[in-house]
Amino acid sequence: MCELLGMSANVPTDITFSFAGLMQRGGATGPHRDGWGISFYEGKGYRDVHDPEPSADSKLARFMQGYPIKSHTVICHIRKANRGRVCLENTHPFSRELWGQTWSFAHNGQLKGIKKWPLQHYLPVGTTDSEHAFCWLLDQIRRQFPTPPRQRKKLWTFIEAQADTIATLGVFNILMSDSKSLYSHCSTKLAWLTRQAPFGDAQLLDAEMTVDFAQETQPNDVVTVIATQPLTKNEPWQPMHKNQFTVFQQGKVAYQSKLQ
Amino acid sequence: MCELLGMSANVPTDITFSFAGLMQRGGATGPHRDGWGISFYEGKGYRDVHDPEPSADSKLARFMQGYPIKSHTVICHIRKANRGRVCLENTHPFSRELWGQTWSFAHNGQLKGIKKWPLQHYLPVGTTDSEHAFCWLLDQIRRQFPTPPRQRKKLWTFIEAQADTIATLGVFNILMSDSKSLYSHCSTKLAWLTRQAPFGDAQLLDAEMTVDFAQETQPNDVVTVIATQPLTKNEPWQPMHKNQFTVFQQGKVAYQSKLQ
Repeated sequence: MCELLGMSANVPTDITFSFAGLMQRGGATGPHRDGWGISFYEGKGYRDVHDPEPSADSKLARFMQGYPIKSHTVICHIRKANRGRVCLENTHPFSRELWGQTWSFAHNGQLKGIKKWPLQHYLPVGTTDSEHAFCWLLDQIRRQFPTPPRQRKKLWTFIEAQADTIATLGVFNILMSDSKSLYSHCSTKLAWLTRQAPFGDAQLLDAEMTVDFAQETQPNDVVTVIATQPLTKNEPWQPMHKNQFTVFQQGKVAYQSKLQ
Repeated sequence: MCELLGMSANVPTDITFSFAGLMQRGGATGPHRDGWGISFYEGKGYRDVHDPEPSADSKLARFMQGYPIKSHTVICHIRKANRGRVCLENTHPFSRELWGQTWSFAHNGQLKGIKKWPLQHYLPVGTTDSEHAFCWLLDQIRRQFPTPPRQRKKLWTFIEAQADTIATLGVFNILMSDSKSLYSHCSTKLAWLTRQAPFGDAQLLDAEMTVDFAQETQPNDVVTVIATQPLTKNEPWQPMHKNQFTVFQQGKVAYQSKLQ
């Protein structure tokens, strides 16, 4: 299994604090030694960092912790390989362009038989079931909506239905973004938390580190963090339920599937 | 105008020496202050770094100079913006997936009217004429070859013909890779150099730095470097001629257009 971390914010925000906690789980406080990656969106602009080395030992991960990239949306993944060997092309997040937007995707779980599902426009570069699922999902979106639909909710409910279909093959905990929204689907394990005024202290679970967000933020900032497991010990993380699909924009929930 | 740097090698090789020279031209010894980017291929694996800051002042560029990534193929670009504002999405190299391979592309020059050329599969994320040209080129390749042709030379002569067509609009100095080959097209300015045994010293033009490649290499290493302008002062750089199209593989010339 792997661990996911995502962020959606209404102002460009850096994720160095949460990132520092997660990176410890890549070989120090957790067993996810098979590489890590992180995607940042700055408006339409996109950049990502991939490293097949364990994050807890990685010189690149240490550099990133001290190099705050301000971003509206972030997706981060640390990998414990179960399908596909440890190499750069199998390192999440994966990315593709659709409608002139860069989509990126990270997955936790296994999907039995997904590689038999036919692909058309998007082909995997690596050999993971995760990248195959991402390509299949983008193929469906592209076929249904050759151009972006005016009603965003149509897109969201369509993606939700596809995610539910994929999830029938196994475990499909994901974070995905199209640069405008952050999408999450939970099969077994995802939790989230919104930080907004009044801001307080947060203490990492995986490292001796505390941040006082009151010192780091403006009163109108809204920042949501989503993770496989809570990253801090003194904040009210909310677990997501099975098949919960949530769309975040600007740090807030824009759409959420009904409780089943 | 911008500056390009590429490398093709038969063994995983780091480009930190040439990179150190080029980065100086991004605001120190040259005027290319509008961002920089670099792509690395490790087998099918791909990673890139993009930074809209001037490379000569960039903390990320300094980190990369001390973080040797061993790669068969590298493409690097420093930007002096003429079309498209300075922002992350306008920073080269651009990348897209075709045939399950990551293609990346960097361009020096202006192309008058390219944005009127229709696109189908690939759409630009940013607003540069360069990214539009790359999307158009990939569209043509995808249409002509829905799957990779068995005879690689068919692909090469096809890309050459498309590059010549684009070059009628202005200046089209490019470096492009599909993870297997490094393609270059020269309109006005590109030079190249192959380093192989017996290796010697190289002295950078843009910084006080010398490397003795005899200490850094094995006898069978073959490493070709391509750049807008020579990066070292004591090596036999060969200028490319107008409309010269060259394909490099494993550090060697695999295909070259005939002299006109």
